[in-house]
Amino acid sequence: MVGGLANGWAARDSSGHLSPYSFNLREIHANDILLRVLYCGVDHTDLLQVRGQIGKTSYPLVPGHEIVGEVVEVGVEVKNFKAGDVVGVGGIIGSCGECNLCNSDLEQYCRARILTYNHALGDETITQGGFSSAMIVHHRFAVKIPEKLSPEQAAPLLCAGVTAYSPLKQFMNRKEVVRGGILGLGGVGHLGVMIAKAMGHHVTVISSSDKKREEAMEHLRVDAYLVSSDEAAMAEAVDSLDYILDTVPALHLLDLYISLLKAQGRMLLVGAPPWPLDFIASHLILGKKVMEGSLMGSMKDMEELLNLWAEKELVTMVEVVNAEYVNEAFERMERNDVRYRFVLDVAAWANKLH
Amino acid sequence: MVGGLANGWAARDSSGHLSPYSFNLREIHANDILLRVLYCGVDHTDLLQVRGQIGKTSYPLVPGHEIVGEVVEVGVEVKNFKAGDVVGVGGIIGSCGECNLCNSDLEQYCRARILTYNHALGDETITQGGFSSAMIVHHRFAVKIPEKLSPEQAAPLLCAGVTAYSPLKQFMNRKEVVRGGILGLGGVGHLGVMIAKAMGHHVTVISSSDKKREEAMEHLRVDAYLVSSDEAAMAEAVDSLDYILDTVPALHLLDLYISLLKAQGRMLLVGAPPWPLDFIASHLILGKKVMEGSLMGSMKDMEELLNLWAEKELVTMVEVVNAEYVNEAFERMERNDVRYRFVLDVAAWANKLH
Repeated sequence: MVGGLANGWAARDSSGHLSPYSFNLREIHANDILLRVLYCGVDHTDLLQVRGQIGKTSYPLVPGHEIVGEVVEVGVEVKNFKAGDVVGVGGIIGSCGECNLCNSDLEQYCRARILTYNHALGDETITQGGFSSAMIVHHRFAVKIPEKLSPEQAAPLLCAGVTAYSPLKQFMNRKEVVRGGILGLGGVGHLGVMIAKAMGHHVTVISSSDKKREEAMEHLRVDAYLVSSDEAAMAEAVDSLDYILDTVPALHLLDLYISLLKAQGRMLLVGAPPWPLDFIASHLILGKKVMEGSLMGSMKDMEELLNLWAEKELVTMVEVVNAEYVNEAFERMERNDVRYRFVLDVAAWANKLH
Repeated sequence: MVGGLANGWAARDSSGHLSPYSFNLREIHANDILLRVLYCGVDHTDLLQVRGQIGKTSYPLVPGHEIVGEVVEVGVEVKNFKAGDVVGVGGIIGSCGECNLCNSDLEQYCRARILTYNHALGDETITQGGFSSAMIVHHRFAVKIPEKLSPEQAAPLLCAGVTAYSPLKQFMNRKEVVRGGILGLGGVGHLGVMIAKAMGHHVTVISSSDKKREEAMEHLRVDAYLVSSDEAAMAEAVDSLDYILDTVPALHLLDLYISLLKAQGRMLLVGAPPWPLDFIASHLILGKKVMEGSLMGSMKDMEELLNLWAEKELVTMVEVVNAEYVNEAFERMERNDVRYRFVLDVAAWANKLH
């Protein structure tokens, strides 16, 4: 069974400029599903990758890893999906399926993980992402979107959302009130706030300026807003937080934030600045504090998060734009001019092609 | 009840030179015990503190926080100790006793913790350590030394040993073989090796040079010895360790060691270089890796460790010297000329004074 031709938006070089690009999909194997892509979220990693700023990029490259699509065909072995189902695909589309990590719902850390795009498969093909009319994926790496949830709402949950959810899960269902900090109020940060609030945490947004105070307090209804340059407020907040979700992909002073953690508090690192961060070891030692890294989330995390969204009727703040708008979306995202996530309407664009 | 006069070795200024010093002990309160000090271990922190290199030092200062003594008198409320008992005292001699940390056997992280020496108590007295003929301590901060264990053997366990034991405890009684790394083979490191071996771990000593290979392999019977400058061996060891106990109190390259950890591996930071350490956040993120700080151990940890030593008949490598030798011991310790821990025979010196 041949997957056929897909129409996507690809970068041809490190300018990162995307333009229409047609390519052949691979065959549909027994465990695969063929998707008609409906929506795809736009992430900072997409921008960095098309510009060749994180590792080697293979051009032409179609980015996109917050993909919601409708199932069009399924392989002969696929039992859990049928044509017409609406499903999500995130940043990983393969893993060994056999190691301890795969067997512990931590498949995103499997050494044989396959990234959704820019991943060389050994047979000279490179995986291509969701800024594309269609996609073929192993059914294990697709998750059903709950009916109550609209597909454009679901898209940002598949990477940004689950990136926040996965490390925050350990703080669910605690007997005592959990006091959490969210560092950086961007795509991941705003979803982190919503998730932490949904878990019943007391949430403090920590920011370098006062700019987002109103947004955070009025709209996201956080419990506190802390400006990191406000020395008096920072001093008062010392030793007060159980965790800080650190979403900042730029250089920042870890020691300053570590001081805000209670004993046994945890810095949850999900932003990945390409430059080294430094810290004084005794700041961790004296309080049994922890820094832990976390990468996206597992398929199980995704399913749980989508169900949480449906159940609590949460509304993600997204700006839905036609796929043709993708270069402008990148530019605006770079200026932080988005509240909080662009979602490409891929189907609206692809439908016009016929 | 008056505690009487004690004879110790004190630093008078930041030269860090110790000389005999007599001082009055405080009163013995209802919950206190009075100890005749037998032995006291010599730790790097003692040296740094008497030289004023870690925070403010109040002179004259008697250091020492790996103290083994014989109980001479007990306060009226003390039920768990009697005259003649041999007990140990470590780095902490007080905490609030009421907070979550105190109630979870994590009293060493209590915000009201009182350090064994150089701690200002508010009434203008400064706590004085175990390089002294006698000491008064609240019974909650003393631990019984098992009869099978000699007091000079027990001394280094009370700080160096428990510093390694406390973070390693989480790797006890695992079903699968745990592969651990010990970074730095000094006072804490060699006890870390012994503890990890006693827990049944596969133990790799990681060192900057080949100098300690024979010692580690032949004497400490470690399973592997890895030289950090040996690029081929380091490359082969990537992704192989469940934890690294990092005892190094100097600048070192965390990223190099983080790469040796498996997914979910943990850097256990117990050395505390006064300078910042740096790392690339994505090295933690991509493998769900963790850096955690750990400070000494709780009283419960101490008790468990002493029992482990007695039960498994482990032998700590110590060089027992008369207390008069303390300045030479500091000098030799600074040159790493000790295998692996000096223990001062305090009683032998103090007895001669009478």
